Amino acid sequence: MRLLVKLQYNGQHFHGFQYQHGLRTVQGELESILTKMHKSFVRIHPASRTDRGVHALEQCIHFDTELAIPSERWKFILNRNLSEDLHVSEVTEVESSFHARYLTTGKTYRYKIYTTKDRNPFYMGLKTHHPYPLDIEKMKSAMAPFIGVHDFTSFSSAKGTIQNKEREITDFRLIETEDGFDFVITGSGFLYNMVRIIVAYILEVGEGRREEDTLNIINAKERTLVPRTAPAEGLYLERIYYD
Amino acid sequence: MRLLVKLQYNGQHFHGFQYQHGLRTVQGELESILTKMHKSFVRIHPASRTDRGVHALEQCIHFDTELAIPSERWKFILNRNLSEDLHVSEVTEVESSFHARYLTTGKTYRYKIYTTKDRNPFYMGLKTHHPYPLDIEKMKSAMAPFIGVHDFTSFSSAKGTIQNKEREITDFRLIETEDGFDFVITGSGFLYNMVRIIVAYILEVGEGRREEDTLNIINAKERTLVPRTAPAEGLYLERIYYD
Repeated sequence: MRLLVKLQYNGQHFHGFQYQHGLRTVQGELESILTKMHKSFVRIHPASRTDRGVHALEQCIHFDTELAIPSERWKFILNRNLSEDLHVSEVTEVESSFHARYLTTGKTYRYKIYTTKDRNPFYMGLKTHHPYPLDIEKMKSAMAPFIGVHDFTSFSSAKGTIQNKEREITDFRLIETEDGFDFVITGSGFLYNMVRIIVAYILEVGEGRREEDTLNIINAKERTLVPRTAPAEGLYLERIYYD
Repeated sequence: MRLLVKLQYNGQHFHGFQYQHGLRTVQGELESILTKMHKSFVRIHPASRTDRGVHALEQCIHFDTELAIPSERWKFILNRNLSEDLHVSEVTEVESSFHARYLTTGKTYRYKIYTTKDRNPFYMGLKTHHPYPLDIEKMKSAMAPFIGVHDFTSFSSAKGTIQNKEREITDFRLIETEDGFDFVITGSGFLYNMVRIIVAYILEVGEGRREEDTLNIINAKERTLVPRTAPAEGLYLERIYYD
């Protein structure tokens, strides 16, 4: 039986999603519980491997089990064994052909920024502090040209290993909040560090440190044009889409 | 020159306010920075010594300095040296007779609870999870008799060393929030664990595990009548009053 599990996690005390020997990771914690329950190693497959410090409002994973546990019971059992910063919100049985990573049709990420002059100790690890004046209209002008199908080489980390850098961005919004704003971006997929590099660029435009030049930067396919990467703490994987 | 410093801190990574050798505490962190700046030991005096895991939206401390730094400059210097979970919101010069602890005329504490069925990993260390049905009206009836001057022996920890257990509660409210509620309590002063014991009692009444019996419990002056203490993570020192 293949199960699809929807998870939330607060990334600040994890060394990212992916298993690393001797370090606390989301994958390590889940596989350890499942392996104990099954008395043999259980591998989980995530929709996306989030980096160290990155959060998930919704992450999806799948795994296979022979245990005779009804899917509605799984949520309770997993949550009882998981630590407070990792929570299972839903477990459903899926067809054996389902794959949490290969079958995704899109993802939404949210990037949270607060702009008050004073630092807020209760946002530590949860929102990025940006106490400098920003021109919201300039940022919106720099965001609009991202929509569409583009090669995002200029907005991805040189460490990425995927050859095809073409992705489609279907939605990119700035949502004002009580004490700052969120960027919410939806696309077919995202390259390594892509959201954080895009956010760093938009903030530089908003600060007046560089002019809006989105399409030229995209077309240049040149990684060095946007050297900055926004911090992990503000980034949330928000939703995974399947057909 | 005596300075009054208003602080905020996220208590989840501190072993409380008070200095403890080899452990991370708010006092330890502040005194270490001040001692480096003065090249001699500087003692700070807080309005209240919060426990491990307890937060402060406003804590007040004072210390004496001979350094020729304008008080408006102090805030900047301290924040530059403090870690992210500890923030100075205000520094003002006060008379040499001022004392942050002895001159307080009252304090407000807030206790944050969320009641959604699912745990929220982003509230870890910041709000107490209470996913059981509560009768708000019953809780309010149990809260009302706290107002006034009472001996709070029944609602304080046996570990407290202060002889006089009489305190005045001037205000006690339940404020509903997006996903739960806050208790906000103001009084002349609070005994050791008093707010957390009162909250534990009110929640037991709200759950229907015990009947409202506030005045009788107070009058009994008997510590064993309320054996529970609500967790530290939901508690915030919110305000300190001086004349």
